[in-house]
Amino acid sequence: MTKAKAYAALDPHSALVPFEIERRALGPTDVQIQILYCGVCHSDLHTARNEWNNTLYPSVPGHEIVGRVVAVGEQVSRFKVGDLAGVGCMVDSCGDCPSCHDGDEQYCEHGFTGTYNGPVFGGENTYGGYSQTIVVKESFVLRIRHAETDLAGVAPLLCAGITTYSPLRHWQVGPGKKVGIVGLGGLGHMGVKIAHAMGAQVVLFTTSASKVEDGKRLGADEVCVSTDPEQMSRYTGQLDFILNTVAAPHNLDALLQLLKRDGTMTLVGAPAERHPSPDVFGLIFKRRSIAGSLIGGIRETQEMLDFCAEHGITSDIELIPMQYINTAYERMLKSDVRYRFVIDMATLN
Amino acid sequence: MTKAKAYAALDPHSALVPFEIERRALGPTDVQIQILYCGVCHSDLHTARNEWNNTLYPSVPGHEIVGRVVAVGEQVSRFKVGDLAGVGCMVDSCGDCPSCHDGDEQYCEHGFTGTYNGPVFGGENTYGGYSQTIVVKESFVLRIRHAETDLAGVAPLLCAGITTYSPLRHWQVGPGKKVGIVGLGGLGHMGVKIAHAMGAQVVLFTTSASKVEDGKRLGADEVCVSTDPEQMSRYTGQLDFILNTVAAPHNLDALLQLLKRDGTMTLVGAPAERHPSPDVFGLIFKRRSIAGSLIGGIRETQEMLDFCAEHGITSDIELIPMQYINTAYERMLKSDVRYRFVIDMATLN
Repeated sequence: MTKAKAYAALDPHSALVPFEIERRALGPTDVQIQILYCGVCHSDLHTARNEWNNTLYPSVPGHEIVGRVVAVGEQVSRFKVGDLAGVGCMVDSCGDCPSCHDGDEQYCEHGFTGTYNGPVFGGENTYGGYSQTIVVKESFVLRIRHAETDLAGVAPLLCAGITTYSPLRHWQVGPGKKVGIVGLGGLGHMGVKIAHAMGAQVVLFTTSASKVEDGKRLGADEVCVSTDPEQMSRYTGQLDFILNTVAAPHNLDALLQLLKRDGTMTLVGAPAERHPSPDVFGLIFKRRSIAGSLIGGIRETQEMLDFCAEHGITSDIELIPMQYINTAYERMLKSDVRYRFVIDMATLN
Repeated sequence: MTKAKAYAALDPHSALVPFEIERRALGPTDVQIQILYCGVCHSDLHTARNEWNNTLYPSVPGHEIVGRVVAVGEQVSRFKVGDLAGVGCMVDSCGDCPSCHDGDEQYCEHGFTGTYNGPVFGGENTYGGYSQTIVVKESFVLRIRHAETDLAGVAPLLCAGITTYSPLRHWQVGPGKKVGIVGLGGLGHMGVKIAHAMGAQVVLFTTSASKVEDGKRLGADEVCVSTDPEQMSRYTGQLDFILNTVAAPHNLDALLQLLKRDGTMTLVGAPAERHPSPDVFGLIFKRRSIAGSLIGGIRETQEMLDFCAEHGITSDIELIPMQYINTAYERMLKSDVRYRFVIDMATLN
């Protein structure tokens, strides 16, 4: 076992504080990683504050982990000491159900084991990336092919990147397709970059007129201020697919109207309160769909990392020290970050 | 022009009454049909009473029409006098948009012309099948291959049949697939018959314990009383597809839970009030979809009629005289019909 410094929430109402955890002794199929950077995901905050009513305390958040391999078990073949490596939202799954067989471990029929907050369906707590080191079985460790100087911006790919890449691939976004990305936050800015790199025509929908230029810089061909009905009406029936990254309840009907026949709007944001109920006529009259999507499988996460390395894609980040995390949470709640906080884990030493 | 006896709603609040209409003179591509039977669809009632706020009065409902060809225009090639023929929910569309080119006239970008209540996007009123005769352009007239003795039971195929057939085909229901049909009314009982004939394993979900035996007789392999949580729990994550025919607002979450990963629930009922808003987590955690579907295209309607003729499928009906229509509407509101009223149009003479 290894002792490690970490930051933890001890209850739903207090700030995160320094905390010491233990990592398990290295098993034969385990990889131990010295964590260099960890992205700050909105799920970290939801979990730290028990907003999904399922938090096990103490809670050490963080599932956008990149670092360096410092030890490998005797059966580990794909990693050696000194390699860069990443860990995303999952550290285990049953490995035996149809979803796991298909490489969709995120939909494991028995519930995957989260990188933090433990197994979804019971079991021991797990501690995430707000810590110095982590021990993870090899099959859930990702290879990093980006340049080492890009490493901090790679961390958010492990959650925000795969959460947007997976639905864009699944619904076959690419050349000749016109795709809407709704919301320009941590998820949305990755969606814009990735959909653009996939060759689609990208329309960003944002409520903030101040983000128009930034949207274009990130790769949007067009930006529509979604609070302006006149701008919205230009896109009626124009889009093949919409990736909706907004986690706050909002009017889905206005967006559904923008889809062509057989178009799908996929939700990746998980609001604590429900959206207003969508109008069934908006679905029926063009055979449209509303879908949901959860991160992505391990094989697909590796594919996404390789795709991003090939296309020079990283997240736009603000690097922070570990001690800044509580302030970062407050700023995140005000959408005051462009576009992802990443913790420099050296500041924990 | 031909004068014809009909039944019409003259305003939203009165009973339907006898009314005389004129049918246009036969054009070169027109087929004139003596109407023998007309099914009674819930949309007829919605329209007669202006419940969708778009009714043009006088309103002559009816879009489940079967009859005999009594005259054909000089350019008509597929029908001759004496043939049986059917007309469904549409009598025209633009013919030139991507949807029309794909044979999806029901999603015409310029709005199809309804068999009654005229063009969706303005234009003259049209009168439906509660009448002695109708003149329709050949390309919107369907061929009937059922035996003439089955004709009354064929009428509801023109709306209830295609409304269920089209999504079952679109979402690839067939052998090896487990499909849920929700609701056993005019639409649902067709859904059960057609899904069964397609070779799927069919589970009927009904709130009425009294319909269990009937559901099995119609072709359901299993019937689940959806008000019983214990029965419902047996189907969690078991279904590839759900066809939801219920037009009243209801809890969609309990049904979404029954879908496998990547499963879709398609809504074909159009409630006047919205459903309670579905839980986004129910979509996200299995990449599930909620979709809508509207009737079907002309080519697909012909395919459905041929499929039903081949498999001996008609609607289970209660044959009524035209004069009974107002009572039939009241009974329909109480779901007191197994499973479709069909008007014997000879009673109008």
